[in-house]
Amino acid sequence: MTAARTLVPLAEATPPLYAGIDLGGTNIKAALVDDCGRLVGFHTEPTEAARGPEDSAARMGGTVHHLARQAGIATTDIAWVGLGTPGPHDLRRGVILRSGNLPGWDDFPIRDRVAAHCGRPVAYANDANAAAYGEFWIGSGREYASLVFLTLGTGVGGGIIIGDTNVEGAHSHGSECGHIIVDTAPTARTCPFGHRGDLEAYASATALVAAAREAVAGGGTGPLADAVAAGETLTPILVARAAAAGDPRARELILDAARWLGIGIVTLMHTIDPAAVILGGAMTFGGEADPIGRAFIERVREEVRARAFPVPAAETVIRYASLGGDAGVVGAAGLARLAHRRG
Amino acid sequence: MTAARTLVPLAEATPPLYAGIDLGGTNIKAALVDDCGRLVGFHTEPTEAARGPEDSAARMGGTVHHLARQAGIATTDIAWVGLGTPGPHDLRRGVILRSGNLPGWDDFPIRDRVAAHCGRPVAYANDANAAAYGEFWIGSGREYASLVFLTLGTGVGGGIIIGDTNVEGAHSHGSECGHIIVDTAPTARTCPFGHRGDLEAYASATALVAAAREAVAGGGTGPLADAVAAGETLTPILVARAAAAGDPRARELILDAARWLGIGIVTLMHTIDPAAVILGGAMTFGGEADPIGRAFIERVREEVRARAFPVPAAETVIRYASLGGDAGVVGAAGLARLAHRRG
Repeated sequence: MTAARTLVPLAEATPPLYAGIDLGGTNIKAALVDDCGRLVGFHTEPTEAARGPEDSAARMGGTVHHLARQAGIATTDIAWVGLGTPGPHDLRRGVILRSGNLPGWDDFPIRDRVAAHCGRPVAYANDANAAAYGEFWIGSGREYASLVFLTLGTGVGGGIIIGDTNVEGAHSHGSECGHIIVDTAPTARTCPFGHRGDLEAYASATALVAAAREAVAGGGTGPLADAVAAGETLTPILVARAAAAGDPRARELILDAARWLGIGIVTLMHTIDPAAVILGGAMTFGGEADPIGRAFIERVREEVRARAFPVPAAETVIRYASLGGDAGVVGAAGLARLAHRRG
Repeated sequence: MTAARTLVPLAEATPPLYAGIDLGGTNIKAALVDDCGRLVGFHTEPTEAARGPEDSAARMGGTVHHLARQAGIATTDIAWVGLGTPGPHDLRRGVILRSGNLPGWDDFPIRDRVAAHCGRPVAYANDANAAAYGEFWIGSGREYASLVFLTLGTGVGGGIIIGDTNVEGAHSHGSECGHIIVDTAPTARTCPFGHRGDLEAYASATALVAAAREAVAGGGTGPLADAVAAGETLTPILVARAAAAGDPRARELILDAARWLGIGIVTLMHTIDPAAVILGGAMTFGGEADPIGRAFIERVREEVRARAFPVPAAETVIRYASLGGDAGVVGAAGLARLAHRRG
């Protein structure tokens, strides 16, 4: 299945070519990408995680051959492959240690298995780091020398890039920005990993939905309660729609998530001090063009201005991501390009 | 004045030679350092900040000439000079923006003024970053490829080193680890910069002394109250002495600071994921050999084990610094060496 993306014809592509693979709990996405970060080919298929990691690894390797065939080139014309997966990992060994989204995939040497199946060398990264690299290479971060990328979805993924350095950490746990601590109250919420008071427990889509569910269960009326009563599924989009329809409670829930996010960003500014902070994922609503998306990011900026040192508070760019769901495959291809250039 | 330090004779020093200068609110320290990080010469004199920045810059430039004369070499035999000063700074321009410890030194181009006075090129850094580099080069961090250094003194200074990268940030506010947010309660303490709930407000010597003062003012008896009643000045050492003498309240104050420090370190582990976290400054008490120093660092490690991902919790080294007050001059010389090697 090829989505309706703008693809560059092979004849116009700038070599070398790379493949990027983004492994998610639901789908495998893969793209053939040129040296300028433009998509030449795209392919997606279900992860079917229950069939086990070796089965998925074989199919991921197969997508590389498929992308080559689709473009009319040999697989060996693809210089390197980049692969981003959920963590935690041991990146040096190319292993998924375990993953909430991929039950039973423990200690699986995914990098080498995919490499064996596609016959090309594979650069391996945390999925959020790969997406961060995509935004850094050709997305919202393309004008900056450093950035922190936060993807606000089921969890809060993070990617930190400082110049040419993707901050992977000494134990493959760098850039796990969803797990910085923002609330030390004994009553603080916990994330799915059980970390009390971390950013993920407050600024993920899951956290917003949980807070909305509590609010609705607590009684009261309004667009949010009405939508839930009518059987609609609680999502960040539904909460945003209720907020846009004038539900003050829905708006408050969204702005509270933004406030926590701002607190987390201040901590990142006082450690990394990136040129830009890029926000992606479901919690970006309709972006700055959308009233709720604008209110959300403005609340983030307000918290940052209130808490950060004056210079970074004034100069750090905080903006939404621009690559949407393709950041992961493009970024994985970008990391493949880095690996290729480094020999 | 030359302190009783072990100095390497010039004939045994490994060239090139560098000078490191550590500017503090009270003293200027300067050292002649060889390519292996060994001290060849040392000099210290009062900062006399009230005489203004140009006066101090002239004297800092003078110390470089003095160190050369002392060693019997020409100033031009010193390859580069490194300078660490309190911030915040504009590191690219070599400017102190303002400093709590150096009142009135606003927007002073200290790097270039020191360079003008000594006639050598000057590498410029945050003082805590310089100290971090000292520990990384030849101190407690010498076996690691990355580290976070926290100096727990009047404030909480930080230095983040990832391989060859000293994380200075896009706006010279990187590694300001004292200003990561650990407490978001409305009643949270503030640091001298007015940041509410940051690490500095809980884990600096100043914070411990403030908490001890409140505890003593609140009434009760014990070694801590007795010492204060006898006119002794409240310092971390005094609180530690009371704790060692069996004052449970003093011990609790120290362990509470350690708990906050552990929380901050978890956040740093989930962003930087350094190989090692190195603790320096007054709040290290007598180090691991001392019962209170050991209890303090064990409480930090306990909080980290309770809150961090299992792999970094198990593998990240948390230890005390080894260079003491010389970390700043040695590290500044190390940064001079880096600048020299980079051409």
